[in-house]
Amino acid sequence: MPIITVKMAKGRTMEQKQQFVETITKEAARILNVKEEWVTVLFDEYDRENWASNGQLHSLKFGEGFGKNGAE
Amino acid sequence: MPIITVKMAKGRTMEQKQQFVETITKEAARILNVKEEWVTVLFDEYDRENWASNGQLHSLKFGEGFGKNGAE
Amino acid sequence: MPIITVKMAKGRTMEQKQQFVETITKEAARILNVKEEWVTVLFDEYDRENWASNGQLHSLKFGEGFGKNGAE
Amino acid sequence: MPIITVKMAKGRTMEQKQQFVETITKEAARILNVKEEWVTVLFDEYDRENWASNGQLHSLKFGEGFGKNGAE
Amino acid sequence: MPIITVKMAKGRTMEQKQQFVETITKEAARILNVKEEWVTVLFDEYDRENWASNGQLHSLKFGEGFGKNGAE
Amino acid sequence: MPIITVKMAKGRTMEQKQQFVETITKEAARILNVKEEWVTVLFDEYDRENWASNGQLHSLKFGEGFGKNGAE
Repeated sequence: MPIITVKMAKGRTMEQKQQFVETITKEAARILNVKEEWVTVLFDEYDRENWASNGQLHSLKFGEGFGKNGAE
Repeated sequence: MPIITVKMAKGRTMEQKQQFVETITKEAARILNVKEEWVTVLFDEYDRENWASNGQLHSLKFGEGFGKNGAE
Repeated sequence: MPIITVKMAKGRTMEQKQQFVETITKEAARILNVKEEWVTVLFDEYDRENWASNGQLHSLKFGEGFGKNGAE
Repeated sequence: MPIITVKMAKGRTMEQKQQFVETITKEAARILNVKEEWVTVLFDEYDRENWASNGQLHSLKFGEGFGKNGAE
Repeated sequence: MPIITVKMAKGRTMEQKQQFVETITKEAARILNVKEEWVTVLFDEYDRENWASNGQLHSLKFGEGFGKNGAE
Repeated sequence: MPIITVKMAKGRTMEQKQQFVETITKEAARILNVKEEWVTVLFDEYDRENWASNGQLHSLKFGEGFGKNGAE
């Protein structure tokens, strides 16, 4: 423990994932008072057609990109 | 908030998903006293070999279809 | 199947939950092509200090209420 | 109920899944005092690049295998 | 890995939980080809008013018990 | 999006939670290329008797504390 699950749109690179994992593992250890080897991180990646907000699928709202350039 | 996650077998169309998202977003706003823009809906789609009930994988129980025609 | 999980702030009444369950079960059956008896709905209720957006716990952002009157 | 979700690396066969489902369904019925037909089991399978421990993605730590032969 | 989550109604004893944990950890190791020390088990316990099937909250359908004596 | 869920033992203070939320929201924005206002963080807190590893409930393995002082 802890187990940290990150739900997000598909499209991040393995480098982004590794950088995020390293950072939040260190911060979890520092702030939540655990050892780094106890921290598990999982990524649940979603296609745009499986994520909706405000009553609309993101595949309809944003098309196929991801990130700050125009879309959630 | 709220965040509504729908776990189901693969096979629904984007039209079915959009229709369901619209409907439950409206109903969540009406019944649970939230704004529609606060409602997030996620679909987690499962292959039949990753869903089991009564001790049996659905890939063995139902084959590859979905919906009311013969299967869960 | 399907299994629908609703994550939201604590504070809704049993009547609100029952009304929401009835409605989304019927809509799931109608739109997603399943039988009503296959639909499971779970509520995961959160204290405000366990839900955060935009970098801030909702207990700090909103205080202790819920719903449209001032807060998510 | 109950609903049992198994998060693990991709790579198990349908035979392994079915054997595990049968076993834990029987044990859930026996130990937790439920009927076998109430037990649902879901498998959430992960690519190695979506699972990390101790600050490192398993795709970097273990390569592409799974199981006891060298890796989690 | 793996991480096994058991969602069920409140009411099981610590002895039932420990017995179930021991059993499924052994079976996961045997069938899924992992080491026992890699297996994590989490219990998510639900009040009856937060679990519904067939359009009805279990608090309305079953009252407050659990297990095979009359209820899911 | 993204939605980040942190499963951990009960016992952290609201200050620890807020500090962790601030930090990972900033890091998610920086590394995963999203806006801070899109990031949701949820804490799922567990009693020791609902978390097990290596075939043993943590209530039996560690007693009632949390953090690095003796326990996961």
